[in-house]
Amino acid sequence: MISVFDHPWLGPLFGDDDTRAAWSGDRQIAHYLAFEAALARALGAAGLVDGQLAREAAAHVSSFAPGLADLAAGSKRDGVPIPSLVAALRAAFPDHGTAIHTGATSQDVLDTALALTLKDISAIALRRIDGLEAALGALADRFGANALMGRTRMQAAQPITVADRIGTWARSLAAARRRLSALRNGVEVLQLGGPVGTRADWAPHEAEVADAMAHDLGLGSATAAWHTDRGGLIAYAGSLATLGGSLGKIGQDICLMAQQGIDEIALSGGGGSSSMPHKANPVEAELLATLARYSAAQMSAMHGAMVHEQERSGAAWMLEWMVLPGLTVATCRGLAVAEELCGRVTAMGQSGA
Amino acid sequence: MISVFDHPWLGPLFGDDDTRAAWSGDRQIAHYLAFEAALARALGAAGLVDGQLAREAAAHVSSFAPGLADLAAGSKRDGVPIPSLVAALRAAFPDHGTAIHTGATSQDVLDTALALTLKDISAIALRRIDGLEAALGALADRFGANALMGRTRMQAAQPITVADRIGTWARSLAAARRRLSALRNGVEVLQLGGPVGTRADWAPHEAEVADAMAHDLGLGSATAAWHTDRGGLIAYAGSLATLGGSLGKIGQDICLMAQQGIDEIALSGGGGSSSMPHKANPVEAELLATLARYSAAQMSAMHGAMVHEQERSGAAWMLEWMVLPGLTVATCRGLAVAEELCGRVTAMGQSGA
Amino acid sequence: MISVFDHPWLGPLFGDDDTRAAWSGDRQIAHYLAFEAALARALGAAGLVDGQLAREAAAHVSSFAPGLADLAAGSKRDGVPIPSLVAALRAAFPDHGTAIHTGATSQDVLDTALALTLKDISAIALRRIDGLEAALGALADRFGANALMGRTRMQAAQPITVADRIGTWARSLAAARRRLSALRNGVEVLQLGGPVGTRADWAPHEAEVADAMAHDLGLGSATAAWHTDRGGLIAYAGSLATLGGSLGKIGQDICLMAQQGIDEIALSGGGGSSSMPHKANPVEAELLATLARYSAAQMSAMHGAMVHEQERSGAAWMLEWMVLPGLTVATCRGLAVAEELCGRVTAMGQSGA
Amino acid sequence: MISVFDHPWLGPLFGDDDTRAAWSGDRQIAHYLAFEAALARALGAAGLVDGQLAREAAAHVSSFAPGLADLAAGSKRDGVPIPSLVAALRAAFPDHGTAIHTGATSQDVLDTALALTLKDISAIALRRIDGLEAALGALADRFGANALMGRTRMQAAQPITVADRIGTWARSLAAARRRLSALRNGVEVLQLGGPVGTRADWAPHEAEVADAMAHDLGLGSATAAWHTDRGGLIAYAGSLATLGGSLGKIGQDICLMAQQGIDEIALSGGGGSSSMPHKANPVEAELLATLARYSAAQMSAMHGAMVHEQERSGAAWMLEWMVLPGLTVATCRGLAVAEELCGRVTAMGQSGA
Repeated sequence: MISVFDHPWLGPLFGDDDTRAAWSGDRQIAHYLAFEAALARALGAAGLVDGQLAREAAAHVSSFAPGLADLAAGSKRDGVPIPSLVAALRAAFPDHGTAIHTGATSQDVLDTALALTLKDISAIALRRIDGLEAALGALADRFGANALMGRTRMQAAQPITVADRIGTWARSLAAARRRLSALRNGVEVLQLGGPVGTRADWAPHEAEVADAMAHDLGLGSATAAWHTDRGGLIAYAGSLATLGGSLGKIGQDICLMAQQGIDEIALSGGGGSSSMPHKANPVEAELLATLARYSAAQMSAMHGAMVHEQERSGAAWMLEWMVLPGLTVATCRGLAVAEELCGRVTAMGQSGA
Repeated sequence: MISVFDHPWLGPLFGDDDTRAAWSGDRQIAHYLAFEAALARALGAAGLVDGQLAREAAAHVSSFAPGLADLAAGSKRDGVPIPSLVAALRAAFPDHGTAIHTGATSQDVLDTALALTLKDISAIALRRIDGLEAALGALADRFGANALMGRTRMQAAQPITVADRIGTWARSLAAARRRLSALRNGVEVLQLGGPVGTRADWAPHEAEVADAMAHDLGLGSATAAWHTDRGGLIAYAGSLATLGGSLGKIGQDICLMAQQGIDEIALSGGGGSSSMPHKANPVEAELLATLARYSAAQMSAMHGAMVHEQERSGAAWMLEWMVLPGLTVATCRGLAVAEELCGRVTAMGQSGA
Repeated sequence: MISVFDHPWLGPLFGDDDTRAAWSGDRQIAHYLAFEAALARALGAAGLVDGQLAREAAAHVSSFAPGLADLAAGSKRDGVPIPSLVAALRAAFPDHGTAIHTGATSQDVLDTALALTLKDISAIALRRIDGLEAALGALADRFGANALMGRTRMQAAQPITVADRIGTWARSLAAARRRLSALRNGVEVLQLGGPVGTRADWAPHEAEVADAMAHDLGLGSATAAWHTDRGGLIAYAGSLATLGGSLGKIGQDICLMAQQGIDEIALSGGGGSSSMPHKANPVEAELLATLARYSAAQMSAMHGAMVHEQERSGAAWMLEWMVLPGLTVATCRGLAVAEELCGRVTAMGQSGA
Repeated sequence: MISVFDHPWLGPLFGDDDTRAAWSGDRQIAHYLAFEAALARALGAAGLVDGQLAREAAAHVSSFAPGLADLAAGSKRDGVPIPSLVAALRAAFPDHGTAIHTGATSQDVLDTALALTLKDISAIALRRIDGLEAALGALADRFGANALMGRTRMQAAQPITVADRIGTWARSLAAARRRLSALRNGVEVLQLGGPVGTRADWAPHEAEVADAMAHDLGLGSATAAWHTDRGGLIAYAGSLATLGGSLGKIGQDICLMAQQGIDEIALSGGGGSSSMPHKANPVEAELLATLARYSAAQMSAMHGAMVHEQERSGAAWMLEWMVLPGLTVATCRGLAVAEELCGRVTAMGQSGA
């Protein structure tokens, strides 16, 4: 495997089961089919195809199981799996072809699947922020009153308490939650535009179709397609990366606190060394710094992917696919690692005499 | 000059007078002194120093003119200009020393000056978004009904109108305005923490001091310092970069439309060539793509600057100084360039027979 | 799967079988065992352990098949698989423990495995550069004399020939080959340092051990460990990314040439659309631009990974693992895509009357 | 000022006089004129213009002083200063117009000026590497035998000596020197291509013209233009960034060594605090880490600038201008800072009893 997130032995360190499930082939296909079924239903509801036919098409589509080899061959040829999926659907249900994918384009399906996936990711991340906050709260309860040397520019400055430092960590998380909660609204949104983003084939019922589909799929609706406006998506990605940045700061702090000579934190169960049996490495704390720096670099690619040509850029769009899934794993894994790390803390700061 | 933004002959192309003014030495010093004066007044109002003394200190500080050589020597030595500025203030007003900088730290001054600067930047950007939207509206009025070949993956797809393409540009800007308007609240915020971020020297009046200063300076107030939580700042920077990304997409589209053989846009006053007198290069459209890619890369550094050590990281903080000002110029200059470019358009699309 | 390189249906588009094989678990384990076997032999040759014991240890180690679950559990705990691998080896061959991993550290094994992997990658890349050059040569033979409008700043400039443009592509590849050939010497080098990089446990035979191992493994030898000096590795990665950049330029040019209205290239077998049967999208050409921009962003992370703390940074080192494999796939896949694309060209430029 | 490199009070901290001089307007103009003079002489030598006229033209051009306002207005209009400079030259020397800029294009002038500038930069960097190596050698002489705790993953590992750690720093610099020395040959090269890079106007004497100019200017010669092949330039930039990365590692190590509780280094003259008179901040050591991370992020933009369209991309080329000068300052300033820092060291490690 190329990616640490899916790696046979590095996977458990870097990867995350819940996030992997959100991006799994099965779940992605389910999203694709949910889009096509919702479209069929909306076409029927808007009177663009016969209502009974639409309902049947939706039912058929929902129960379809595409062949992976087909999707793979199609993706290699077309750059996207949807032409091959739609062809398979129409071949399987020839009498319902008018209710399948009518007026839509590949990007509608893939971006809507993305929106559904990111809804899953948001839920994972927000739940884990809660868990991490609770874990930090528990640390503050246990060790908050202990003394710590406040350090600025890596130099001893003035005494603070453990609660002071944990407080800065927790406030950063609370702010990250607020940003994520706000910015998810800009991306958990139905994509619907048709071939060139104008929704022309559904006119004059395009708003009705879009609203019905969005409601059906549990997504927000927009007055137009966002095929080439990736700003909402990039801002959302940025909210994950800043969350990861906050975790990186926590990890870096813990690494610094764990140094012999500083001895401001003690951790159970650190990583072993192949050559030095006495060592207990703060691997998880280091990992938080690693994940933060990884995500920071990916944001360069995400922002670069804003420069779409004309009505759809394959080049910019494919760049998102290369980068965004890893960014979500890095953030969600980071939250889990940080919570695990809190559970390993056996001492923080110096208790008073 | 090292930077294109300040360059003797590239400056007019890449730079921006309003944004430069917001970052100018004079304006920065004014912000520093505004912070110190507001602190003096707040100390007086909170009863932490004598009210009359505080008012006098604020007046003295406000009228002070520090020596640039002093600030430069101090910055080289201390990494920040504030120790040298505070020493100069205390030397100039020895009787008012207890009301000057009391309880504060360099980062309080510099980050508050940053917040004030970004308030200026937000105003510039938002005003220019309005201007650009009006210019796009005027283009749509003139040329909106004309036909254009909708292109996806750089291939002819289906006919659209000029209004369709301008509409995608305009919606992207409107979304960018919404994000900027929301995210500025996370960064146009007083910084106040004291040496290790705990506001200890003002206790139990710390909230009173902070709220009074924030009100005085026209900034938001926060319940605690954000010395090491840069998430709000990075999210704000991200909103600039996504705005720049939208402009890059507009520029890229215009470059593509201006190709001979495509001929979907005509521009007056293009750039000349040293070897080909017939050429009229779409330099401004290219510049929009350049600025977008520049800003995208800087976001890697901004996100990386989240990893602050302990109560203050000099290393991470200085990285922001290297990157953020350029990001603001790139965005604000991009907005102005895009508006200028709209004004050069003499034809778009194909008018019907 | 999180990564497009390993994805069930995007894998064939983005991934590359040869490169995946170089990074596969089986091949990585083979490298680990090759290191341990070479070390055993070198220890014997240097007289640091009994020669017969060393030979037996090497033979045992070479035939060992570690359990993946063990490596996974070990990696999650220790941050690296080697402590668990070494423990398994010593448990399996208790009489040969003194010849197994003696004096070495996890980083010696993993970085040497990396060096061996990059040797594979270099071979793939160099072979494919040859293939692509041949394909470009064939295109030049077929179409080189045809006319093309030379374009600068995306504007018609002066007529050139197809051979002129292909010539710039080919020269860029030739330069990339020279850089890769030179820079691989800086990274296809044995890593050998021991726990803190000093080679202390092998003194005074450390050079002898290193040279023997390097010779045995077909790698370069160095006078000291490069545990924390990642410059050679980053320069090598940069040579891949600039190669990918050259491919991105080719892809971007082909996308531009393939526009209707420009019509300077014709390609067979373009990608289909789910909504527009007439389209033949230059997916592979777009992919080259995507891969180039992906690699560009990863270089930010690679360079950031230079900042190692002290004798070994887990955080910086793990960042390499997250980024470098993808960079190698992106480059090698790009070379294959570019060659495929050349094979699809059915026309270039305008043949004279 | 927008840039810290040119800033009224941050300039002395981040900037570098020698590097600024290499990029100064005066020096850039001198390079432009040197190019035009060398071209005139080469045209004469090749018999493409009258030899006497060519010599006169070269003399005239060399003594010309263009108006900055002209260059600025021209750059804003044309995207480059050269059309306006050439127009001014031809206006000033109307009888010598046939020997001025004949056959050349703006990019020839600007890239050749870049090559000359980078030759200056290479000299600065290489000289400073020597200086830093000497400073590290002096530290090793003074403190090398002292004990230091070797630390891996930020944890105490095994005792080493100060000489061991300085040795890793020094080897990294030596490797950086080797890369810089090798890679400068790929960029300190004459740019000569003419409008569309084909050298057509000088045929059949193009090689003669190029070789003569390269010799005249003290640059390498190439068999063709490198207008759109930026790989050599990016590789050179990468060699600066990896050098900066090595300095960042040194700085990070010093920050860690300087922590109270670790106390492995003592520095004279640290940075003062506005609130804590007792502090002596390792500002310069932090700055090294900052500069390294800055340069790392810029490499994302540099690599992205490989994707040139057709015979010349304004967009990609302008991106280099935004990024490369800062990268050179960051590296050269970093070298100076590192050497200064060595001079401040008053103790390292623990001397034996």
